[in-house]
Amino acid sequence: MSNNKPIGIFDSGIGGLTVFKEIRKVLPKEHILYLGDTARVPYGTKSQEVVKKYSFLNSKFLKDNGVKVIIVACNTASTSALDYLQEKFSDIPIIGVVKPIIDNLIKIDDVFKIGVIGTNTTIESNVYQNKILEKIRGKIISKSCPLFVPLAEEGLTDNHITLSIIDYYLHDMKKQNIDTLILGCTHYPLLKKSLQYYFGDNVKIIDSAYFTARELKKVIIDQKMDNNDDVIGSDRFFVTDSIESFKKTGNLFLGKEIENIQHI
Amino acid sequence: MSNNKPIGIFDSGIGGLTVFKEIRKVLPKEHILYLGDTARVPYGTKSQEVVKKYSFLNSKFLKDNGVKVIIVACNTASTSALDYLQEKFSDIPIIGVVKPIIDNLIKIDDVFKIGVIGTNTTIESNVYQNKILEKIRGKIISKSCPLFVPLAEEGLTDNHITLSIIDYYLHDMKKQNIDTLILGCTHYPLLKKSLQYYFGDNVKIIDSAYFTARELKKVIIDQKMDNNDDVIGSDRFFVTDSIESFKKTGNLFLGKEIENIQHI
Repeated sequence: MSNNKPIGIFDSGIGGLTVFKEIRKVLPKEHILYLGDTARVPYGTKSQEVVKKYSFLNSKFLKDNGVKVIIVACNTASTSALDYLQEKFSDIPIIGVVKPIIDNLIKIDDVFKIGVIGTNTTIESNVYQNKILEKIRGKIISKSCPLFVPLAEEGLTDNHITLSIIDYYLHDMKKQNIDTLILGCTHYPLLKKSLQYYFGDNVKIIDSAYFTARELKKVIIDQKMDNNDDVIGSDRFFVTDSIESFKKTGNLFLGKEIENIQHI
Repeated sequence: MSNNKPIGIFDSGIGGLTVFKEIRKVLPKEHILYLGDTARVPYGTKSQEVVKKYSFLNSKFLKDNGVKVIIVACNTASTSALDYLQEKFSDIPIIGVVKPIIDNLIKIDDVFKIGVIGTNTTIESNVYQNKILEKIRGKIISKSCPLFVPLAEEGLTDNHITLSIIDYYLHDMKKQNIDTLILGCTHYPLLKKSLQYYFGDNVKIIDSAYFTARELKKVIIDQKMDNNDDVIGSDRFFVTDSIESFKKTGNLFLGKEIENIQHI
């Protein structure tokens, strides 16, 4: 049995490409549809209600285009809208980027003091904080960092401005000697090098992309939904705003030219 | 004759409050409806087509609510959508924030080297650059500064981070010894103090709010649309996303609590 329907991924814009990249690595035969809602980006400064509405429309588009599973490659949408989407589209698996991190966190030894960073809406939802405390005992220090997304989109990922802004938001967190830092936004892996430099090598930095891709692989194999055809998986990208600007910023994330982009 | 219909103002979010504030000063008797499209903010990173679509919906809302004139209190929408709006809503005056600046620019002596800063979409439209060169001879140096809007919204308007980012974008412009700087975005007046410090007192900094308010006053008096009732004008605010977050950031712009906000 082989299922050659595509995997659907959506994000508010380009941040989810960090997740796409990892999925492409671990599932080379799968066809992928990626939707970036660039006409309404960002989600992280918007309310849960608005994020739910946009997430529904994105999922509907992917569903209508025949995907077998949906990845919500955006922390804001995962914390605000995942339960709602799973209820509305109950006939296919919908996987967010929060649970894969939490599930794997408990397998790491010596986790006692965890920093969680993300957008305003993600941090205010308290989803990370609550889900972590359900699983492990420890101290959680959370902080929203609204300028990190525009910094990443500007390509300002590792200079003195990046470090000033990291210090502005995370000065207190650093003083509290965290041992683990969760990047609760799919844009933040672009700042990983600077964050590691700022916190030092003793702090373990965790992002969603790696664990989400592996969770997806497990789900589609367990549910016998994987593609066994002898092919190289194809990629198709959809955006709600300009193709050119997605291409330009997308290169920062993938490190190569993105092709096959359509405006919807 | 008195016309007590309200004045309509729209912006992508809160930036237009700098224009609102100036209008409130010069037209104290007028009733004002302000619409901030906070569910789709920002406009400055989006394409002209998308900005046109959103601007149309905003204008329609204001029109349906009985306004006598519309102020497009957003440079991105003014450069991308003004002609289109004037065509679609030809029965009421629609005033953007670009023309009032250009008209007044020619009255300032000694303007030879002008810096224009704004969002990506505003700068790429070349509207400022072309309109200035239609009127005066001089050199124009333009630069988009995408991080200025998130900086203003974060309240990071006058510290070392602000100055680093100003220097990052405007280093070359400073070296070229401009005599005038046009703030081509309604958010930027919040950074005016830091920009003046960076460029020095010899550079004249001009923003839309002051001239747009005076242009509006002229239009409604010329067209006998002003309100002569013996009242203090009322303010009503409408937002497409959360009331709370508009209130919070809006205080930075107005320096006081905003009341009477409705979600639409």
